[in-house]
Order: sequence, then C-alpha cells, then structure tokens
Amino acid sequence: MTTEIRINDELDLENPILIEGLAGIGHVGRNCVSYLADNLDAEKIGTIESHHLPPYTIVEDDKTLTPLQNKVYQMEVNNRDIIMIEGNAQASSAEGHYEIAHRVLDFADEIGAEEIITIGGYGKGDVVEEPEVFGAVTGQEVQKDYSSYGISFDHDVGQIVGISGLLLGLGKQRGKKGIALLGETPGFLMSDPKSTEAVLQVMEKILEVDLDYSQLDDKVEESQEVLKKLQNLKGSQGEKEQSQQQSSDLGYIG
Amino acid sequence: MTTEIRINDELDLENPILIEGLAGIGHVGRNCVSYLADNLDAEKIGTIESHHLPPYTIVEDDKTLTPLQNKVYQMEVNNRDIIMIEGNAQASSAEGHYEIAHRVLDFADEIGAEEIITIGGYGKGDVVEEPEVFGAVTGQEVQKDYSSYGISFDHDVGQIVGISGLLLGLGKQRGKKGIALLGETPGFLMSDPKSTEAVLQVMEKILEVDLDYSQLDDKVEESQEVLKKLQNLKGSQGEKEQSQQQSSDLGYIG
Amino acid sequence: MTTEIRINDELDLENPILIEGLAGIGHVGRNCVSYLADNLDAEKIGTIESHHLPPYTIVEDDKTLTPLQNKVYQMEVNNRDIIMIEGNAQASSAEGHYEIAHRVLDFADEIGAEEIITIGGYGKGDVVEEPEVFGAVTGQEVQKDYSSYGISFDHDVGQIVGISGLLLGLGKQRGKKGIALLGETPGFLMSDPKSTEAVLQVMEKILEVDLDYSQLDDKVEESQEVLKKLQNLKGSQGEKEQSQQQSSDLGYIG
Amino acid sequence: MTTEIRINDELDLENPILIEGLAGIGHVGRNCVSYLADNLDAEKIGTIESHHLPPYTIVEDDKTLTPLQNKVYQMEVNNRDIIMIEGNAQASSAEGHYEIAHRVLDFADEIGAEEIITIGGYGKGDVVEEPEVFGAVTGQEVQKDYSSYGISFDHDVGQIVGISGLLLGLGKQRGKKGIALLGETPGFLMSDPKSTEAVLQVMEKILEVDLDYSQLDDKVEESQEVLKKLQNLKGSQGEKEQSQQQSSDLGYIG
Repeated sequence: MTTEIRINDELDLENPILIEGLAGIGHVGRNCVSYLADNLDAEKIGTIESHHLPPYTIVEDDKTLTPLQNKVYQMEVNNRDIIMIEGNAQASSAEGHYEIAHRVLDFADEIGAEEIITIGGYGKGDVVEEPEVFGAVTGQEVQKDYSSYGISFDHDVGQIVGISGLLLGLGKQRGKKGIALLGETPGFLMSDPKSTEAVLQVMEKILEVDLDYSQLDDKVEESQEVLKKLQNLKGSQGEKEQSQQQSSDLGYIG
Repeated sequence: MTTEIRINDELDLENPILIEGLAGIGHVGRNCVSYLADNLDAEKIGTIESHHLPPYTIVEDDKTLTPLQNKVYQMEVNNRDIIMIEGNAQASSAEGHYEIAHRVLDFADEIGAEEIITIGGYGKGDVVEEPEVFGAVTGQEVQKDYSSYGISFDHDVGQIVGISGLLLGLGKQRGKKGIALLGETPGFLMSDPKSTEAVLQVMEKILEVDLDYSQLDDKVEESQEVLKKLQNLKGSQGEKEQSQQQSSDLGYIG
Repeated sequence: MTTEIRINDELDLENPILIEGLAGIGHVGRNCVSYLADNLDAEKIGTIESHHLPPYTIVEDDKTLTPLQNKVYQMEVNNRDIIMIEGNAQASSAEGHYEIAHRVLDFADEIGAEEIITIGGYGKGDVVEEPEVFGAVTGQEVQKDYSSYGISFDHDVGQIVGISGLLLGLGKQRGKKGIALLGETPGFLMSDPKSTEAVLQVMEKILEVDLDYSQLDDKVEESQEVLKKLQNLKGSQGEKEQSQQQSSDLGYIG
Repeated sequence: MTTEIRINDELDLENPILIEGLAGIGHVGRNCVSYLADNLDAEKIGTIESHHLPPYTIVEDDKTLTPLQNKVYQMEVNNRDIIMIEGNAQASSAEGHYEIAHRVLDFADEIGAEEIITIGGYGKGDVVEEPEVFGAVTGQEVQKDYSSYGISFDHDVGQIVGISGLLLGLGKQRGKKGIALLGETPGFLMSDPKSTEAVLQVMEKILEVDLDYSQLDDKVEESQEVLKKLQNLKGSQGEKEQSQQQSSDLGYIG
C-alpha cells in the first residue's frame, strides 16, 4: 500500500462533487453519507485501505471477516456526478491522517472533483435539544453559495480534527472549494440520529432531492452495532490504554 | 529489514495450509501452534523478525540472548503440507501490524498457500467454565467446510485485533480462504490451558490427527515463563506507561 | 510532502538572519515573532507544512478553514535581511521534530543564513514577577556577541525541547551560529504578555529598532484565541488521552 | 540521516572489541563506559545521531547547546583495539531502537568488530546491599570465556530492553559473540555509583587493566547533573504525559 484507493471500473465523470463522511463524534458523518448512499441508490465502486487505520478486522453478523476499510460510492443526482467516501475508520497517527487526506485529494484530482463537502459532528459536551448544522468553508465566497440551506455560520467551532478538516484545508491549496458540515451533537452519544437528520435535511436542500427518512432509525442502529463491535474490545481486553487509544481514534470531530 | 521472513532451505510445497498462532489474549494462539509443532514433530524452518516488534531481547534460562522473533514450522500431516507461524510477539504500532500481516501474506503467495487458519483467544471478561471455540471466516462457503468440527458460529465477537484478523481480512482480498479460531478465555489469565485444549481438540478434527495431551501442562507452563520474563519488566522498571504499552502489545485478541 | 517549505517568490538575500518562534510554553516564541512581523512590516513570503504536525484544521473567525501551518516572513531592518518563521504548531513525534528542524536548516542553507535566533519560553513552574530572558548559544564566542542586550546567561535551563533547541544544536554542526532566547514564564499561562514583552525588549536592542508596544495586548489576545480554538477540542471530545497529547504537543519550551 | 554514525578519521583496527553503554536504569552503562573512556585515555573519534532520539537539546553549564547524541571512543588496551559507544540517549520508539541497533551493527561490520560487550543496569525494585553483575551471552561457549571475572550467571533477568539486548540478540545472527553485563541496582536511583563500580571491577578483569576509582564519585555526579537537566523538563512543563514518556525513554534496562 500504504494507502490505497481501489476503484473497480474506470470512471468517466463530469465535474463531480466529492462528499466525505467517515467515523467521528456521534458518527454523524458516516451515518449521513451512508444514508445518502442507500436512499439515493448510490453504487459502491471501490474501497480505501491504509496501513494507518487501526489494525482491527470486523466480524460481520454472518461471521465473515472484513478488513477495516472505507467505501467509495458513485451516484448521479440532478445530472450532477457525485462521489462519496464513507466508512468506520480514520487514521491512528498524525502522519496517517495527512497521508490519507492527501491520497483522497490525489483521487479528487484524478476524477476532476473541484468541490468537496465533508460531514462530521461537533461535540457540544452537553445535551442538545435542536441540533444545528455548523458550516466552515474554504473561502468567504463559498459561504455565500451555501447561505440558503439552513447552515449556521454563527458558531464557535475552533478547529476540526481529522479528515473532514484536512480535505478542505489542504484541498484549498490545490484549488478545491467546499464546506464542512458539522452536526451539533452532545459528544457522548455513540450514534446521534437527531444530529444526523439535521445534516441530512441540509444535504437534501444542497442536492435538491427528497429523502425518505423512514429508515433513518435502522441506519443509525446499524452503525450503533458496528460501533459496539469496535467498542467490545474495551471490555474484552480490560486494557485502559487500549481503550483510550481507540476512543481517540474514533472520537474525532471530523 | 524492516520485516523479514528467513527460511533456511528452499521450500517445495503442494497446496500448503498456513496456520498462525502468535502472542495474544490467554496466549491461546501461541500455545496451540507451539503444541501442535511439538506433538506432530514439525521442523523449525525459519524466523520472522521486524522493526515493529517491541525492542526486547529475551534472556533464556541458560542465559543466552534471543531476539524477539516468531518462528516458522513445517510439517506434513496426512499428505498435506502445513506451514505454521508461532511466537511471542506482535507489532507495537498500527502500521507495524499491517506491514507484518502483508509480509506474511506475501510469503503465503510465495509458497502457494491458499488456505489460512489463524488461532487466538477471545477474552470474555468473566470466568469461563467450558470454553467454546468461536469461528470467523473469509466467506460463507468456508463456514460450511468447517461445520463439523465443533466450532461455534453463534457468538458475538465483534472484531479481531492484530494479525489473526488481518491475515484473513486482507488475505481474502488476495483470494485466500480460511478461518479464525478463537478460544474463549477469561481474558485475565496469562496462559489459559483449558482454552488452549479446546482449540486443540478442534484442530485435531480439522487435521485428522491424534494429539497427546499429556504434555499440555508443560507447554502452558513454559509459555507462562516466557510471559513472566516479558512481564518482569513491569516490576523492574516501575514505569506505568511502559507496562501499559507492553500490556497492549501482548493483550491483543489475535 | 512530507515537510514542505513553500516560498512564493525567488529570494535574493544577503547574509540573512533566521529568526524562529513557534508554538510553545507561554506562546512566547510565537507571539514575539508574530509581533515583530506586524510591527516591522514584514512580508509573508511562504508557509511550512508537514505530515508531522497535529492533524487539525483551524476554523478562523470568518469560518474559513486554514490548515495547521507555520509562516515564513521576510523583512529588511537596518540593511540586514531577516527571515522569520512563526506559527502555532510543532511536530507531534520525535522523528517529526528532527525532520522539520533539518528541513528548516536546509532552507537556511539555501538562502545563505548563517545566523539563527530562536525564541521560546522557559516555564519556571511558579509565579514570575520580573521575567528574565535566558540565553543559550551555539558557542562561547556567540555569548560575547550577545552580551550587551540584557540577556541573562546565569540560569539553570538544562535543555530545550523541540525546534528552538534543535535548530541551534543541529545547526551548529552545519556551521551556523546563534542564540536561543527563552522568556521566563510561569508555565501555566497560555499566553504570557509580560514574558513576551521582555524578549521583545531584547530583540529591540539586537535589531536596533524601536518597537511600538501599544498593540502587544491585542497580539497576545489574538494568540490566546487561537490557543482557545486548539484547546476547545479538549472539552468537545472529552477525551483525556487526546487532550494530554495536545498539551504535550503545544507545551514544549521551544 | 536518519541514524548516522560520524567518525572523524579513517579507522584501521585489528579485531576490535565493541563496548556499549548508553542511558538506562541507574545510568550504569553510560557511567561505566564514560569512566573507562576517561580513565584509560580513550580518544573521542565520532558521534551517533538519530531522528529517533528524543527531540531535546542540552544546555551545557557554559550555556552552549549540544544536540542529544551518543559518542564513539577509541583506545588501545594491552594491544587490543577497543571501540566504545557511550551517551545519554536511546531511541523513543520501537522502530527507532531496531534501526539504531542495526546501524551500530553495520558499523561493527565495517570496523571488523566480532566481539561485543554491552553494559546496563538491572533494576531490582528494592534496596541493593552488594550489587552483583549479571551476565547474558550470545551463546553457551561465551559464558565460559567470561567465567573467571566474577560475573553471576545465576539470576532471573528475563529480558533486556533496548540497545544492550538488541546489539547481542541481533548481532548473534551476524556471527558476533559477546556478553551483556547488567549491574544490579535498585531501579529508583538516577545514577548508582555502587552498581557502576561493581561493573567496572568486572571490566577491570576483562580488560586486564588497573582502574583508578578516585574520580568515580565525580563521574557519577556529572551524570547526575545531565539527568537533572533532562529531568528538569518534568517540573517546568508540568505535563504528566510528557514526563512519563521521558521516563520510559530513559528508564530502560539496557
């Protein structure tokens, strides 16, 4: 490897948008993108693997083994090509975060994606009644593009940890433009359905689609189960250091 | 190096099975494979060393020094070539786990091994009366192949940490098929003879051999001593951080 | 990358001095150099990025995203070319510290800088009434060059952690000469204006300039806000391990 | 770099012995070799630096800066060429330990050194009245060579952490032979003069020299001061994680 994006077929895209939602606080990013993929009939076209992910292998419910990997989806919405990156794992080291982000940006260059939307959670550290969706952008002009979707730019998010920030911060230097959507979430919920729904409502407006929310609870529960698998480790190992490491792996905002 | 598999002689194998049992919870994997090697007169044919193992050097009972390394064994059972990997050490970083797993899979490719059995422990976090052996497989069809050996596929193991999972999860992508056998163990026993015996009984059926269990206690005690050597460090250094690191190195399920 | 210094235009400098002030205890180095840049109308000519910095992306007050990067400034003072390196981030690993320091020294070689001044804080661990500025040098002869600027060489600083030490210790081996200026600071203040002012007064004499201190409070407050952004993470993640890591990243003397 | 051994002049040695004593428990190895170098008029002929050492720069008593580096000494004793490696720093990661050890072994190959003596401390975790010197060897035949020097081979040292073990464990595979001498020490003394003297008395017999012990207290005090410099950091940073890391860096047996 060390970080490899495998795409099954050759891609022929026109001005695609890249949407990212990986594991993070409240699993908001992962759940949003996963739900979009299901609901809008996206096709899974590839995977992302890396030496920098935690060295875990998931045991699926049917007892088959799947390496920790992120997935790449493709769909066409209102004549616009969309590529989505979704999954349960971020890097386990600083160097790994940068390497994976640069590799995804190389991929964006290869497929001609100039616009990027990243999705994550913002942990408030307290109960959240009506979760807002906070935005952070590559440039002031982008804020205007996204001004009519109910995104709040009145917040005090100071930084984004992990890929959701890096793709935009580093991407900006390659001429990409885009927005990070951060669903407000308590921070202590493993999977937050309310925050996920809030971000989905924004995405509905951005993509000009109608989403069916009836299966959102299933999706959230599904992700809850994956998280439980990954968290089980804690109990079974009884290793404080280990569980801390895992928490920090998965606890990122991005 | 950085990760090197040294084989003494040229190998000429036919469709060999690769069996792995390295350090982990209850030392089940290491003890099973070590016991199989002894009991079935396997020949030690090589070693695996890596920059990614902990930087420890073992002082043997005769006061000679041995670098931390894993061993490669060869044997022929019922006209089937078998290569086994056994040892006291796994990688000390995420990147190291992936590198070692890929290097072992390269070796599997080189010797034409298409079938892999990995052995580890599953820490229940509680007393275990009658340890079961849980299975996780590369694909549903493999589950059928292993259905008559007393392996339980009715469990809630969510993930495998370390090489026992990676060899199968990553190996699957290279066309390998196989099974992870996880002996149920409390998780707080350094070396668990009951769990080791449970897995050995499964291996006995898989390999169609008769094992002599009379020396199992010796084997378990021997591994207990190695673990004590590696654990001694804790006491002698009095460094909490150090001992935690070591625990997590050795505490993996795989 | 892995560590990249990007300079916008070709540089044509004569015997420039290199001044470094990155994140560290009391944010003394970063604030001094940032203040010098503002007050002496330095021009921002480039950036330093690295895979070894923490994987954070800053959300600016106008909600635009900036990758964690350090800045390179140029100015001419009394006919002397000066290049300054300033910023909020140091490496997150031992290897990263060495790599970034060597890369900056390569850059010093490229632009012909033979003299280096590094600025940091020295955490006393107690209240500091009248902060002194401690000096450490590449060689005894340098101490004489800097003897008339109010720098104290009567201190018990035992070592410098991070770039402020490495640039001089490693630079010395490349024939560079220079001094580390360490502003005495309690160590528990995020941004220490008194210590910053003490070092600025020394720099005023070294550079033979008149500084306007009226905006120092603004500058310190600005850095306080950046630090708060970077510290916010703590609260929002509620991850002890994470916050510890961050503390050690930013808590270095250098 | 990443790990570089710089030798000032070309070496022309005949069958030299390599002696290693780096930072570790009770600073026994570093102090022994440093004392031998002083007492037997060894010449400093080079340095070892590495990206893998902690990123610290030492402020000497005369306020000059020295990068963390280990030193290479040469001397001739009873017509036998001896090369010694001494210093205050070991690697800060598993990978770094292996890399530095292999680089030193490459150097041993280059100068034709087939025999290696490594010196360290063995932390007993309790008061030590009469410190013994424990030995661990590359092979049984070596134990005989060293049987008449008062070295105890009746001990329960289970493993050696760091370079003192790796040089012999890995060196053995390159055909080197040698011994690790471990001075018994409580483990909570920063610099242990009694243990150092015990090992020096063994070295006196091995090298067939007469050592003048009158300056041993000065030597131990000197190392105590370096350690204090390196420990000062703890207090000044008030960072628990940082100090733990440092402890584990320096706390190794080897």
